[in-house]
Amino acid sequence: MTRLFNDPVNFVDEATEGFVAAHAQRVCQVPGGVIRRTRSEPGTVAVVIGGGSGHYPAFAGLVGQGLAHGAVMGNLFASPSAQQVYNVCKAANNGGGVLLSFGNYAGDVLHFGQARERLIREGIPCEIVAVIDDVSSASQEELHKRRGIAGDLTVFKIAAAAAEAGYSLEEVVRISRAANLRTRSMGVAFDGCTLPGSKDALFHVPAGKMAVGLGIHGEPGISEQAIPTADALAELLVSHLLEEVPDGVKSVKGARASVLLNGLGSIKYEELFVVYRRVNQLLEAAGIEIIEPEVGELVTSLDMAGASLTLFWLDDELERLWKAPADAPAYRKGSLEPAPPIDASKLDIPDADEIPAASEPSIAAARCLYRALSATRKVIDDNVEELGRLDAIAGDGDHGIGMQRGAVAAELAAEEAVSRSAGAGTMLRLAAEAWADRAGGTSGAIWGVMLNALSLTLGDDETPSAAHYADGVTKAKEDVMTFGKAKAGDKTLVDALIPFSDALSQAVAAGDDLSTAWQKASAEATAAAEATAQLSPKLGRARPLAKKSVGTPDPGATSLAMILTAIQTVIDQPVAEVS
Amino acid sequence: MTRLFNDPVNFVDEATEGFVAAHAQRVCQVPGGVIRRTRSEPGTVAVVIGGGSGHYPAFAGLVGQGLAHGAVMGNLFASPSAQQVYNVCKAANNGGGVLLSFGNYAGDVLHFGQARERLIREGIPCEIVAVIDDVSSASQEELHKRRGIAGDLTVFKIAAAAAEAGYSLEEVVRISRAANLRTRSMGVAFDGCTLPGSKDALFHVPAGKMAVGLGIHGEPGISEQAIPTADALAELLVSHLLEEVPDGVKSVKGARASVLLNGLGSIKYEELFVVYRRVNQLLEAAGIEIIEPEVGELVTSLDMAGASLTLFWLDDELERLWKAPADAPAYRKGSLEPAPPIDASKLDIPDADEIPAASEPSIAAARCLYRALSATRKVIDDNVEELGRLDAIAGDGDHGIGMQRGAVAAELAAEEAVSRSAGAGTMLRLAAEAWADRAGGTSGAIWGVMLNALSLTLGDDETPSAAHYADGVTKAKEDVMTFGKAKAGDKTLVDALIPFSDALSQAVAAGDDLSTAWQKASAEATAAAEATAQLSPKLGRARPLAKKSVGTPDPGATSLAMILTAIQTVIDQPVAEVS
Repeated sequence: MTRLFNDPVNFVDEATEGFVAAHAQRVCQVPGGVIRRTRSEPGTVAVVIGGGSGHYPAFAGLVGQGLAHGAVMGNLFASPSAQQVYNVCKAANNGGGVLLSFGNYAGDVLHFGQARERLIREGIPCEIVAVIDDVSSASQEELHKRRGIAGDLTVFKIAAAAAEAGYSLEEVVRISRAANLRTRSMGVAFDGCTLPGSKDALFHVPAGKMAVGLGIHGEPGISEQAIPTADALAELLVSHLLEEVPDGVKSVKGARASVLLNGLGSIKYEELFVVYRRVNQLLEAAGIEIIEPEVGELVTSLDMAGASLTLFWLDDELERLWKAPADAPAYRKGSLEPAPPIDASKLDIPDADEIPAASEPSIAAARCLYRALSATRKVIDDNVEELGRLDAIAGDGDHGIGMQRGAVAAELAAEEAVSRSAGAGTMLRLAAEAWADRAGGTSGAIWGVMLNALSLTLGDDETPSAAHYADGVTKAKEDVMTFGKAKAGDKTLVDALIPFSDALSQAVAAGDDLSTAWQKASAEATAAAEATAQLSPKLGRARPLAKKSVGTPDPGATSLAMILTAIQTVIDQPVAEVS
Repeated sequence: MTRLFNDPVNFVDEATEGFVAAHAQRVCQVPGGVIRRTRSEPGTVAVVIGGGSGHYPAFAGLVGQGLAHGAVMGNLFASPSAQQVYNVCKAANNGGGVLLSFGNYAGDVLHFGQARERLIREGIPCEIVAVIDDVSSASQEELHKRRGIAGDLTVFKIAAAAAEAGYSLEEVVRISRAANLRTRSMGVAFDGCTLPGSKDALFHVPAGKMAVGLGIHGEPGISEQAIPTADALAELLVSHLLEEVPDGVKSVKGARASVLLNGLGSIKYEELFVVYRRVNQLLEAAGIEIIEPEVGELVTSLDMAGASLTLFWLDDELERLWKAPADAPAYRKGSLEPAPPIDASKLDIPDADEIPAASEPSIAAARCLYRALSATRKVIDDNVEELGRLDAIAGDGDHGIGMQRGAVAAELAAEEAVSRSAGAGTMLRLAAEAWADRAGGTSGAIWGVMLNALSLTLGDDETPSAAHYADGVTKAKEDVMTFGKAKAGDKTLVDALIPFSDALSQAVAAGDDLSTAWQKASAEATAAAEATAQLSPKLGRARPLAKKSVGTPDPGATSLAMILTAIQTVIDQPVAEVS
């Protein structure tokens, strides 16, 4: 378990501060993460990696000459925000464009994707390679759904070595994708890790058992079995990985591969070496030439008890890049001439507090939207216990409290933004970040996504029309469905959001003004939220009690319908009263 | 807990094999441990480190250019044998003498010391620096009694950098001792580690508590307290270490120091960084300039939950050597030109099976001694249950079984040696190693020490006389008291060994033949063993039930007296019957 912390709320910030103090010669801190302390060749691609914290050496320990140019550091096991990604990219940019790489998780895909859009809008070329090495997380036919685990390292290393060698962004993308498609990992777990301040681990595996394919955040695995001998584990992992030889590898016999045997936290070095002994025998017997393997802790999950094996199938170009020297806090290879340090005072670090200039109509719209957020906060305040009660039937009962925390934070952030003449887009972005940050949990992330979608649609220049709002709601619906992977009928907020969005778009297209259209649409949402009582929830590992909720409306759909109804009063208010 | 292993008996051998396979470019295996795969400058000092296994990166992970030339790898948490140390030194020797460095534990001191004597006898200059950084393990007045923990790294690094810079052995010793005296560590523990195959941890700390100063093998600490915050832990460790500024450091303000914050296995990186944040603040506030700190896992104890802080107070010379580049499997720093590989086929690797030539009288004596070992095995076989019963009153009841395992192994090794015409010294050395290896535990180590002392006294050339045997027994007594730290009256084997040794020496000096002298002396031993029933054992943390044993003779003293009496029959046998 995790034992050493102060206030758990500050754990990641304090760990980051300590990390930067210990490695001041190699990295420097910027808002959202860290970047290299050493200078890169102007015009070269910057490789920016990242994800949730708690996986050291991933991600900050992999920043340095020959490896990543920057790492974005989210909260524990939580995706960093789009703003964090943007900040680190701006500071790491060398003028050759940015490659973003991270494990393929919904939150990361969303936030890195949002940051990419913003960078491109600002004229900075940016591409994404999401790592998909975990063979247990989806079938070979659905490669794009696979998660990223220890294979992160091979993709990051290849991308960075290519950038260092002067490859163009297009070429860095090409070779990083090739590395991604030639990297396969499989993991096992024996016990979960404990977040700072928690009484118990995130999950447990039954004593004496091993979960095959369990993810590094406890995502469901593919089977459970008695803990095997070290040799039998090696045989299991190698045989699974050899079943899936990537396209482009003509024959296993004679192939070259690097091998990573990764410990997740409390499976220790001597154990890993005992397993590696057999891995090495098996791969050599299969005729594979092993190139510069790594045995140790590369991507951890705090003190989780688990391990994974990665095969990285090389060709000449990949082998050359894999062997290239690197000097990061937690990964060093070969010998390289230290580059001169950067002048940290001249970094392009976005001012997190900066409010971009906005048009007058957008500033006026921001004032209206602030009123909508106040109404949102008020209706949640009034219904916090009822929402908690609904959630307690099938869940952990924190929906009311979580919504309250998020709505309060968003209202405060919006008030501050409005007082500084923010446009609608900026105000909504700040409110989205505040909501997601403070609420936590799934509902916090989803409300962050919805407000962000509105923010991107409205921007700071346009005069928002009814059509703009309808488009923003449509984008919010689409992003939520991409992020949350929920479909209509799954008994989630989506069941109210889809009819609302559809009705709003239809009414606006038919010529209704915003007030009329909103009224029709929110009535649809309310009816749909009530109708969720009849639905059977889609059962997931995380919601074993959810079937108890048949007969009760979904709390997320209910709170959405309440908020949409409450906002009607703001829309109907004369604009004069709003300011 | 340790989960991945095959037969626990083979754990260390298999881990070593896997380690060497993973790092084949840096190290190669020799009997007893590993040496660098890269060539060193002829005539330079070889730095050989080592100790028990289970502490990776210590010790094998610290072998490589700029760091150690070789590492001797004992069993889990058990000192390597003198033969292992000797083998690694012979293979690592570059013609400039050998510096041996290791944590200051009795078994290591003994076995590295025995190997040193042998190397010197063979004309290879050899010196020892035993690391004594753990401030909790003895007072400042008894520095030489302190244990070595994570501060191992600073002494090893300085010794190796000095050797690499061409220092003579005398100069390497000087600067390594200086580093040793300027290194101070303090550790805390939250829970013990589990040996492969064991059902439970080596020790536990009560839940929610922290043991201050507990050793890396569970040696008693100085206090127990509630687990503090990360900041409070930093404050505790820093304040203790600043109380003990080494001689030669004029003032804390303005001093330079390196800092190691070491995790023992399952206290993870992010936690260490949170603690380091405050350590860094406190040391900077005290006016200390921090030079190239390390935060991570440097000296572990399998998956033990614990951490330690080390301050290494630098001067100009130490700072230069600390900053020198190094490239070992688990410790890399700076940039260095890779040295060419050695030709592993030309290593001076002692043949473990070789039986050195011996004189005829020594070969004849070996045959007599083999009969003595047979008689030993037989008397233990006959009394194994009785010895177990005596031990079960205060201990874990395994004294009989342990003695049996050791005596059987020693008899077999002696038989093999005699069949190959070994002299008395070689035969006893092989029997000593077999006994210590197979018996395990304290009694195994002690019987190994006694037989080794006899081996060194008799050698392979001399015609053993009664005086030789008396001298050998005296050395055995002295070595056991040094190794086991037991005094007369502590209710141990020493209570029978002292009167036996004294009586034997006295009778032989007075002109008695061996049979008469042995008879008098073994009668003294038997009486003394029986008298231990009246003694109160010295209570140690490991023996909470020992006071129950008042009224029962000590099992170790009893088995010794039985064996001495049984040997009398061999001495009285005509020599003709012996061969």
